[in-house]
Amino acid sequence: MALIVQKFGGSSVANADKVRNVARIVGDTYKAGNDVVVVVSAQGDTTDDLIAKAGEISAKPSKREMDMLLTSGEQISVALLAMALGELGYPAVSLLGWQAGFQTDSKYGAARIKSVETARLQMEVARRNIVVVAGFQGICKYDDMTTLGRGGSDTSAVAIAAALRADRCQIFTDVEGVFTADPRKVKSAYKLDEISYDEMLELATLGAQVLNNRSVEMAKKYNVELEVLSSYTNKPGTIVKEDTALEKMLVRGVTKDSDCARISVTEVPDVPGEAFKIFSKLASKRINVDIILQSVGRAGTKDISFTVSRANAAEAAQLLVGVDGIKPENIVIDTTVAKVSVVGAGMETHPGTASKMFEALYNQGINIQMIATSEIKISVLINESEADRAVQAVHSAFFAE
Amino acid sequence: MALIVQKFGGSSVANADKVRNVARIVGDTYKAGNDVVVVVSAQGDTTDDLIAKAGEISAKPSKREMDMLLTSGEQISVALLAMALGELGYPAVSLLGWQAGFQTDSKYGAARIKSVETARLQMEVARRNIVVVAGFQGICKYDDMTTLGRGGSDTSAVAIAAALRADRCQIFTDVEGVFTADPRKVKSAYKLDEISYDEMLELATLGAQVLNNRSVEMAKKYNVELEVLSSYTNKPGTIVKEDTALEKMLVRGVTKDSDCARISVTEVPDVPGEAFKIFSKLASKRINVDIILQSVGRAGTKDISFTVSRANAAEAAQLLVGVDGIKPENIVIDTTVAKVSVVGAGMETHPGTASKMFEALYNQGINIQMIATSEIKISVLINESEADRAVQAVHSAFFAE
Repeated sequence: MALIVQKFGGSSVANADKVRNVARIVGDTYKAGNDVVVVVSAQGDTTDDLIAKAGEISAKPSKREMDMLLTSGEQISVALLAMALGELGYPAVSLLGWQAGFQTDSKYGAARIKSVETARLQMEVARRNIVVVAGFQGICKYDDMTTLGRGGSDTSAVAIAAALRADRCQIFTDVEGVFTADPRKVKSAYKLDEISYDEMLELATLGAQVLNNRSVEMAKKYNVELEVLSSYTNKPGTIVKEDTALEKMLVRGVTKDSDCARISVTEVPDVPGEAFKIFSKLASKRINVDIILQSVGRAGTKDISFTVSRANAAEAAQLLVGVDGIKPENIVIDTTVAKVSVVGAGMETHPGTASKMFEALYNQGINIQMIATSEIKISVLINESEADRAVQAVHSAFFAE
Repeated sequence: MALIVQKFGGSSVANADKVRNVARIVGDTYKAGNDVVVVVSAQGDTTDDLIAKAGEISAKPSKREMDMLLTSGEQISVALLAMALGELGYPAVSLLGWQAGFQTDSKYGAARIKSVETARLQMEVARRNIVVVAGFQGICKYDDMTTLGRGGSDTSAVAIAAALRADRCQIFTDVEGVFTADPRKVKSAYKLDEISYDEMLELATLGAQVLNNRSVEMAKKYNVELEVLSSYTNKPGTIVKEDTALEKMLVRGVTKDSDCARISVTEVPDVPGEAFKIFSKLASKRINVDIILQSVGRAGTKDISFTVSRANAAEAAQLLVGVDGIKPENIVIDTTVAKVSVVGAGMETHPGTASKMFEALYNQGINIQMIATSEIKISVLINESEADRAVQAVHSAFFAE
């Protein structure tokens, strides 16, 4: 008998039929002799509907009250799933985040989990109840509702799996697992059986959008074995764990991330400390910078380019005006770029990976604007209009068609 | 500076405009220098919508899970009202039932309040926050959500007023107060300035439907001064309190209750214990009996008639078959009856009240089927089709046109 944590997102419980489908999956797992804790998100568009309700009242509602409002969403879905399980004859009990022991800090809207007090969870599991837990939410020291931010239900599931030392944490999605590339774009893309935490983290960061990044980081930290699988097909998914048996494999996947903008700052004085001033200014406003490139500019100056998410581009540019005499005309924003990356733990020992990627892009006549590498990935910034073609070409270069 | 508890029902917060209207009323009370605690119900049809959602999943869902589901409704409305107050510049904080200290028993769906732990409420009031509390809900000793049953938000408001020793508890409704008769039916009906708890209780029981009965009982027990008033007109309502200055007034109101059915049982053996057997049988199934009338029947038998709510009529009749040889043909159900009552604390010292009422009915040619009296009311059972005319006639007899 194993203890399995299962997580279902909002689209998996969007209506009564889908709730029943989830109840069947959960029930089958329980019937096979396992203890089961299920984490669910709010139904379908509930969260967006609630945000719209708040918008009718206030353009900038209090974050505390937003969390009070939004946490009602999962409350509805846990009650309905527990009812559906009861209807199938399974003993089930629903718990809100705080009832399941989620203690967080008081950063409303983006709270971090401080601990999961498992007494209630353990009691319910010991009674052989299927425990249905509201994801995305917790309670802070003031006894106020908090939310973990968007995508937080994955994190809730991993946190429970870690706290209960569950045997596996299954994240159900609408895809069958982690693919070597977006299967809607690249026909020859195929599902990976296994992937390491680090590779998964790179893929998540790079826009694969299968798993929330925080949840993978937490899974890695507490060594929780994850499985990403579909709630619609009864097939094994992709296992995410520390070490995989596929060390020989060079590249695990090719991804595209269109949510990036390139900012170029020209004629920056070529003296020490300039980069520090620029990036500490951005960090003070919590603007994440991704690829950074510095090059020699005109006499006595240098050019610094970097990428940020598109939502942050305008603010980032504005912040830099005035930093050590940077003028508006020295700043150029380009929002027509995309980042294409190859990810794979094996590549650090295979120096040919980068050249293979560049060759594939060259053969397509695609110009590379920036390059960034880490131990397990190589990213290039290119024109967004060429990104899908780039992914296809790079995927073909690394994976047999 | 006074401490005022205000309660707004679901129709008063049904949409963003109405929430804003409530925020204005609450804000005006606060701005006048008062401390304010506001209790709100779920928005408009939210509770019914949630019940429908549960109905799609299960014909008989677990009561615990129903409470988990339904308590999300007030969670939405308290957050929205707190946001609307914030938008008007008032400091406001929303609290769920359990955060506001509502400890209940574990009778899910119809829980009773065991205590209100006021620490959090008092802290928020002391900080000069407007405290917005979710009505209708609490938490039981297992840390599970509970609901107080329909209409429970009135009770929540009175319980808070009692626990905080508030100066007044204002119940906002869509009527301007308590009237001498239904103003939609009786043109000359007028609003009472004051009424006693006992009179209000009789009026509530008799179908005036202005205030939930449990809340009036609790207000009487803890001597909480209630005011029933409209959330749409800025006018004083009706004060409900222990002693009123209007002792001379004979009758406070005339009411009609159509939700009654008369059951007549004939040829019951005329021996001791028969009434006990009949009514204990009904009590065992929690069927409330209202007016009871016993008369001499045919040789050696007696007839027993009583009224129950229409929903209970068929079950009550069925239960009695077989009790001491009662046969189906001895039982007659009449669902075309209505109860008309006059209520007023002064009437017990004025024996003329009954005859005045009967005279008014006689003048209209209305036949009285049953009569019941208490210290502060006289009720008659008549044909339902004549009830509105009866109310009009009785009202004219007691109140100047």
